[in-house]
Amino acid sequence: MSHALFDTHKKTLDDARAAIKSRDFWSPYAEIPSGKIYGETAKKDGLAAFEARRNKRFDIDQPSAGGTVGGECSPYGFALNITYPACDLDGIITAAQGAMPGWRDADIEVRTGVCLEILHRLNKRSFEIAAAVMHTTGQGFMMAFQAGGPHAQDRGLEAVTYAYEEMTRHPREATWTKRVSKTDSITITKKYRIVPRGIAAVVGCSTFPTWNSYPGLFASLVTGNAVIVKPHPGAVLPLAITVEIARSVLAENGFDANLVTLSADSGDAPITKELVCRPEIGIVDYTGSSEFGEWVEDNARQAVVFTEKAGVNATIVDSLDDLKAFSGNLAFSLSLYSGQMCTAPQNVFIPKSGVDVGGEHKSFDEVAGAIVKAVDWLHSDASRAVEILGAIQSDATLKRIGAAAGDGEVLRQSESVAHAQFPEARVRTPLIVKVDADRQDVFMREMFGPITYIIPTESTDHALALTIAAAQRHGAISCGLYAVDAPKRDKALDALTASGIPVSANFCGPIYVNQNAAFSDFHVTGANPAGNATFCDAAFVAPRFRIVESRIPA
Amino acid sequence: MSHALFDTHKKTLDDARAAIKSRDFWSPYAEIPSGKIYGETAKKDGLAAFEARRNKRFDIDQPSAGGTVGGECSPYGFALNITYPACDLDGIITAAQGAMPGWRDADIEVRTGVCLEILHRLNKRSFEIAAAVMHTTGQGFMMAFQAGGPHAQDRGLEAVTYAYEEMTRHPREATWTKRVSKTDSITITKKYRIVPRGIAAVVGCSTFPTWNSYPGLFASLVTGNAVIVKPHPGAVLPLAITVEIARSVLAENGFDANLVTLSADSGDAPITKELVCRPEIGIVDYTGSSEFGEWVEDNARQAVVFTEKAGVNATIVDSLDDLKAFSGNLAFSLSLYSGQMCTAPQNVFIPKSGVDVGGEHKSFDEVAGAIVKAVDWLHSDASRAVEILGAIQSDATLKRIGAAAGDGEVLRQSESVAHAQFPEARVRTPLIVKVDADRQDVFMREMFGPITYIIPTESTDHALALTIAAAQRHGAISCGLYAVDAPKRDKALDALTASGIPVSANFCGPIYVNQNAAFSDFHVTGANPAGNATFCDAAFVAPRFRIVESRIPA
Repeated sequence: MSHALFDTHKKTLDDARAAIKSRDFWSPYAEIPSGKIYGETAKKDGLAAFEARRNKRFDIDQPSAGGTVGGECSPYGFALNITYPACDLDGIITAAQGAMPGWRDADIEVRTGVCLEILHRLNKRSFEIAAAVMHTTGQGFMMAFQAGGPHAQDRGLEAVTYAYEEMTRHPREATWTKRVSKTDSITITKKYRIVPRGIAAVVGCSTFPTWNSYPGLFASLVTGNAVIVKPHPGAVLPLAITVEIARSVLAENGFDANLVTLSADSGDAPITKELVCRPEIGIVDYTGSSEFGEWVEDNARQAVVFTEKAGVNATIVDSLDDLKAFSGNLAFSLSLYSGQMCTAPQNVFIPKSGVDVGGEHKSFDEVAGAIVKAVDWLHSDASRAVEILGAIQSDATLKRIGAAAGDGEVLRQSESVAHAQFPEARVRTPLIVKVDADRQDVFMREMFGPITYIIPTESTDHALALTIAAAQRHGAISCGLYAVDAPKRDKALDALTASGIPVSANFCGPIYVNQNAAFSDFHVTGANPAGNATFCDAAFVAPRFRIVESRIPA
Repeated sequence: MSHALFDTHKKTLDDARAAIKSRDFWSPYAEIPSGKIYGETAKKDGLAAFEARRNKRFDIDQPSAGGTVGGECSPYGFALNITYPACDLDGIITAAQGAMPGWRDADIEVRTGVCLEILHRLNKRSFEIAAAVMHTTGQGFMMAFQAGGPHAQDRGLEAVTYAYEEMTRHPREATWTKRVSKTDSITITKKYRIVPRGIAAVVGCSTFPTWNSYPGLFASLVTGNAVIVKPHPGAVLPLAITVEIARSVLAENGFDANLVTLSADSGDAPITKELVCRPEIGIVDYTGSSEFGEWVEDNARQAVVFTEKAGVNATIVDSLDDLKAFSGNLAFSLSLYSGQMCTAPQNVFIPKSGVDVGGEHKSFDEVAGAIVKAVDWLHSDASRAVEILGAIQSDATLKRIGAAAGDGEVLRQSESVAHAQFPEARVRTPLIVKVDADRQDVFMREMFGPITYIIPTESTDHALALTIAAAQRHGAISCGLYAVDAPKRDKALDALTASGIPVSANFCGPIYVNQNAAFSDFHVTGANPAGNATFCDAAFVAPRFRIVESRIPA
């Protein structure tokens, strides 16, 4: 078997293996959408490729019963008018089963090389994928490029890297010799075969269709499984392009393209429940709402299930060095993609007695006021605002903003921002509401979108207790902590991390609690209800295959 | 924190780390019950210690509501008359929760050192544990010593080794530096904390109480979890001694002994269902029947569940080099501990048209007859027979032998064997029944105990199809394959391993399909319904803890 692709990408793999050990910054995929890196016409070509997809059928040469689905609307205010083959579940499952043996029996290096090549091709298509992500999720262009392109590819590569390490952790063949008497010994030749678990289903979400799907997709594929990609009906295109690229690379290398198929459905006739519970499905990766994620965990009993759901994320203010640096950083975290990140802060806990800021006492109102002012400033320039905010992905989020304004004392109203290029874009600035600490019915639930609750607390311990209680009940994917005094900070860090909550302390400047870097940050801890898995560790990859042994006397 | 115990046992750990990579034979715990190794009085002392346990309360200084349970009877024909503290579930769960923080926060090296010391102490007590295993499970002395003592300790050490590798795979702290402009970079210090999943419940079985429980016990303990050990009511003593030793070592090293507790119950008032479903339980390790194991998998939804259940194991005869070598090997595998091993063969598939034996044709009846004869010979000497057979652990197995005699044409009746030392011992030789291949209702179910079905088949492909079908429906933990022609053998090996069935090919002489060596053989593949986990791989240890990150700007 040719290991040519493995050899081509070996340096990338070796560097990735080093990166997951050092956990320093590293990426092979440039995050700057620059013509110098991606080619001078790359942006134009990518946009043209996106436009060429519109108002058409997106054909995929996979088993089909003939129907089509598709109703994506850009949050920037236009319909995509793309149709996809409607999912023929029996057909693609049968095809996936048929495709697996050849892939399963390929060398680990062959599968790894093919997956690395798919990632490389995805990288070259980053601008097209960015446009597809932008006009399905509502992300601003820069985020759509970075999170939808190179950062998603990083997460895919990270999963391939962990899986490669796991598959090669044991020798493929070993000799076992045991002395059984003074003169005799017995020798057995043992082979350890990697056997994939079964067909994998990857259920994508509407806000990060590639970033959240690539880890499961690549972890399952490289370990020998076929993968059925089930996009959210509102964000099909980025994953359809991904499937198309994966199928091309597989076919070019002599494998059955049906190792990766698209299973598109519509909101009216959803198929996820049927898909994830099919007996042929051995692995499910799910990203989405907690409610549906819990349904998947409870019902897809035949499969190993990895979930990334939602959380109620907190920012705890104990003390500050610099009010402006803090409020500016937080304002950006609240605003980035209109709070439609699973890592976005929701509840900001501030002591009602005020906060020590660089030795000076600031009242609760002064600190809350500074946050409001920082958000105001950030969105005072509409062209800057729309880039940061992006657009609101769903009607449900839009309605949620309206409803949340009744939850307490509105410190800052959410407002529309006009988008120069897309006048119909639904752009909203953050809503900031002051809510009493005894209104747990209000703030101890996930309010996805640009909704921030500022909650006066008795003390930092009070804030910690509320944060931990919310995480234990509803999950937490991030937590911001601001405490100047190192022992106090470390005590709080200790309490939070012991409770399974990942913490970012004293983030000011251009680093944000919402951001998690592949090869360094574990995304979702798996230690609270926000998800049962992390991107990426051995627990995320090792159960996707089994080792089956054969023994023969030597 | 003192790493003294880690340093003491570091060479053992280093050697174990090398062994799981080379997968050659290795063990630090001598399997020969020799006075030269274990001390000249070790055997006598161990037996005396066992006798001293009898007719008494087995006190454990753990939370108790005051009651006692205990009704173990030796399969060799006497009651143990030992009582244990009845499980006070609320009490031990609360105590386990209270015990965890100090253990969780100890260095990885401290926890690892303590676990290695527990294993070392268990090893020194191997004779006492052997007696306890023998007189609860019915194993012959040699097996009780080896499988109950050093081999079980090997499996515990293997789990500690995998868990240590997994916990130290990532650095505990890292520096992440990213260039953000031509002149500026940002640097973040990251800490990665190991957070245990929660209290672990280890549910033991009646036949291999230590061998099957140590992997889960040690994997959970070393990763920072408290462990509640739930023995089978028929085999409490080996695990009670284990718990006692673990508690001593923990306490001696300044940890709360309630990190390891015993939860004994009775057949009349079982507590396993309640225990494994308690919300405080984060991990369940289960060994036992498929039916109850499936109940645990389906119901202990709050926990990560590892199961080792049962299978329908086959021996497939295609062709042979030497009939006597084959039949002698198989006779021993069928007889060892009266087939009460989860790895024991049950269904022997022989072509109805006969078998090529070293170029000579032997009829079905000749091959079946050779197996019967080999079993007869093995048990023609009662003193040898009782050592190999041990005694029948449960009444249910005894009844099963009787019932199975009606399943087809009896080729060999099961018979009692008189035990010179224990006249009341229930010792039975294997029952061998010829069953038609269309009687899947008979042989496609697990018949635990000394029951063998010999099934005439159309061809080797027919035997493979039946074996794979049985494994896919009911699981398989071992499979013997006899095929002289290498290409034919490899084709069969390929078909079987692709179906998740581990295979031992052409075993003759003193190596048996039933035996799986730690550090080399993966026990239970996890790729068929016989269990969802294996001893031992990363998937067995990695989900027992989570990595929770904290980030601070440098």
